[in-house]
Amino acid sequence: MGRRFDEMTMDELSELYGELEAKYKDYQNKGLHLDMSRGKPCTEQLDLSMGMLDGLSSHDFPTNVGGSDPRNYGGIDGIPEAKQLFAAMLGVSASDVIVGGNSSLTMMYDTLARAMLFGVVGSDVPWSKLPRVKFLCPSPGYDRHFAICEQLGIEMIVVDMLSDGPDMDAVESLVKTDETIKGIWCVPKYSNPEGITFSDDTVDRLARLETKAKDFRIMWDDAYTVHHLTEEPDELKNIFDACKAAGNPNRVFMFTSTSKVTFPGAGVAAMAASEANLTAIKKQLGIQTIGPDKLNQLRHVRFLKDMNTIHTHMQKHAKIIRPKFDTVQEVLQSELSDLGIASWSQPKGGYFISLNTLDGCAKAVVKMAAGAGVVLTGAGATFPYGKDPRDANIRIAPTFPPLEELEIAIHVLCLCVQLVSIKKLLGKEI
Amino acid sequence: MGRRFDEMTMDELSELYGELEAKYKDYQNKGLHLDMSRGKPCTEQLDLSMGMLDGLSSHDFPTNVGGSDPRNYGGIDGIPEAKQLFAAMLGVSASDVIVGGNSSLTMMYDTLARAMLFGVVGSDVPWSKLPRVKFLCPSPGYDRHFAICEQLGIEMIVVDMLSDGPDMDAVESLVKTDETIKGIWCVPKYSNPEGITFSDDTVDRLARLETKAKDFRIMWDDAYTVHHLTEEPDELKNIFDACKAAGNPNRVFMFTSTSKVTFPGAGVAAMAASEANLTAIKKQLGIQTIGPDKLNQLRHVRFLKDMNTIHTHMQKHAKIIRPKFDTVQEVLQSELSDLGIASWSQPKGGYFISLNTLDGCAKAVVKMAAGAGVVLTGAGATFPYGKDPRDANIRIAPTFPPLEELEIAIHVLCLCVQLVSIKKLLGKEI
Repeated sequence: MGRRFDEMTMDELSELYGELEAKYKDYQNKGLHLDMSRGKPCTEQLDLSMGMLDGLSSHDFPTNVGGSDPRNYGGIDGIPEAKQLFAAMLGVSASDVIVGGNSSLTMMYDTLARAMLFGVVGSDVPWSKLPRVKFLCPSPGYDRHFAICEQLGIEMIVVDMLSDGPDMDAVESLVKTDETIKGIWCVPKYSNPEGITFSDDTVDRLARLETKAKDFRIMWDDAYTVHHLTEEPDELKNIFDACKAAGNPNRVFMFTSTSKVTFPGAGVAAMAASEANLTAIKKQLGIQTIGPDKLNQLRHVRFLKDMNTIHTHMQKHAKIIRPKFDTVQEVLQSELSDLGIASWSQPKGGYFISLNTLDGCAKAVVKMAAGAGVVLTGAGATFPYGKDPRDANIRIAPTFPPLEELEIAIHVLCLCVQLVSIKKLLGKEI
Repeated sequence: MGRRFDEMTMDELSELYGELEAKYKDYQNKGLHLDMSRGKPCTEQLDLSMGMLDGLSSHDFPTNVGGSDPRNYGGIDGIPEAKQLFAAMLGVSASDVIVGGNSSLTMMYDTLARAMLFGVVGSDVPWSKLPRVKFLCPSPGYDRHFAICEQLGIEMIVVDMLSDGPDMDAVESLVKTDETIKGIWCVPKYSNPEGITFSDDTVDRLARLETKAKDFRIMWDDAYTVHHLTEEPDELKNIFDACKAAGNPNRVFMFTSTSKVTFPGAGVAAMAASEANLTAIKKQLGIQTIGPDKLNQLRHVRFLKDMNTIHTHMQKHAKIIRPKFDTVQEVLQSELSDLGIASWSQPKGGYFISLNTLDGCAKAVVKMAAGAGVVLTGAGATFPYGKDPRDANIRIAPTFPPLEELEIAIHVLCLCVQLVSIKKLLGKEI
């Protein structure tokens, strides 16, 4: 390895293709079934939180939590102890927090569904009554954010992700003149899929943004806020404070959850927003629900305790998944570096590694990998409407598979990247 | 006691008023603080389910439930074992069921919110795109159903509740000609607040209903399906089968929950509907959520097991709350019978007793009771928009207060009914 493909002759490329194709066929003959498609924790990670299940038993049960029995009805915004914990995670006050059910995705969906049905603080009419509603979608980004917009009929505008966050020049110029642009999706720390953390300047520019829409909202999905992979974690500027300081306190809805801290299926989610936002939301929530599951909140509070305990717990996660990230980096490095056909992210946290192929190759690579039994996230999934304009981005989710399977899968992936790249350089149909 | 008030002379009534007023003042001087406003289980009832908390520990944990690890992501419609349990409760097949989070109210709200945003199977357009959407609201009924309609901008039409369910003559004639009527709310068994169970004929007529709207839906909130108070439980005809038999399989959305079986704040809710309905709903749910809390479903399945275990468990509930219902009946009987000023329900299950005063008296009674420290559900709450056209209905929720407090509260209530009734009969301002 080591020679750039674009410096090789056609004959050399053809010969290499033959060699690599033989290797590919060997993998095909192995009958692999490797699923790398979902960013979910592995079994060893889930085992880290088993103690939480024992933390709330009939023998050790508090019948008075925040002044009422947590088993009964009552309380729309979570138990006080859980508000305190999530406030610490998000860098806000407990009074700025609503603690919900098991899914921050649901909180985000419901927030936008309510915006469509009723509008938000500052709206003249429900968004669904407007002829068009648009959202800025820094991309590559999180497919499930985009799916929410698509289902609700919110038009998505792609904005490039740069190394320090969304292309703010583009964001500023778009929102200044177009009042149908009602918001922007952000995964500000260890972003999905690139692992980027927004710079202080990006946070400030988002907070200060001059928007034509007077009810513009930042959907701030701080999903990976404590999910560090290294000893030198990224620092994210506090957007809640920045918005307040910029005179736009109602602009941001912050979200986080313990889905990848404790159990993805049985975690706790929370959101934070200004007092005016929360007052409006709680009034609406009071019609939608009898309140969240307070017992699961209690389990979490007892198990996670405080930020120190959370950080210690997350270090245990990192110890399990860091070798997986390292393996992906090593294989990518050994198989693809200096070939001039791919680049990839080296995140310091989060759940993904983002791989970029030559333009027009990603779909073919994913298809080819599937042909050898390696299932990757669909190419294009990281862009609105599933359409990557360059057809170049592939999301790698290293956490779930066992290390040895992961290693094989990445080898297959690298092989497919090389094969498809050669085809492209040879001018063949991909 | 015992003489009808309307057979007494003005002087006799005035004299009685004086006597009763003195009693009322005695109560006022006691400084009571009795809250009878919410239909929630009491502490002893909650204690019945404490064993559930111990049923899922790290020492006894199944990592394979329905083919996957219940701690992780995956599964939009609940674990197979929970579907089976709720199918038995609702009288349908497991494949007809979606098991959700901790609140059937949320499932109902979300179902109607989705109807507004996207329509239902058979809709031409989302309901929110129509100039008007109306719902039939048999009344008195459940205030939180009505609050959902009010928030979503669905106009409510009051239909009388008769002794065997909604006034079906009225229902049939309304839905036949008005295509803006998109549905009806039903609490078909031990209804809130009257404790009525729909007759077989009512169920059949609902299933067969000729509706002008082709996307008409029955919101079937079977909240009290296993909540019997006597040894002779009411039987409710299966509307799922009836709708199928009538050629209207998509008409009904059924809901139930364990809120008043295990823990109101940490129970499990479920819905059932036709295959076409469920296919549409699951597609939408897949965007809204990463799936329900499967661990809490597991806790419930292990604790509640099957219908036999549920019935035994519910008998324990009945043993606790039956004396409270009996006390209310006894006090109402001793204080108000034969006076010609009130009538009340004698439910065989559910959570409420419904009291009807003379027309125009309910609000004043509730206010007067509050003046002596007894908080009742707001008068009018059992009607759409909080407006009881007769101002006569008061909902009594006997389960939560301790028996001795309940007894005092009902005595105060009866006193207030008498006082306000005398005022009315004397032609005084109430």
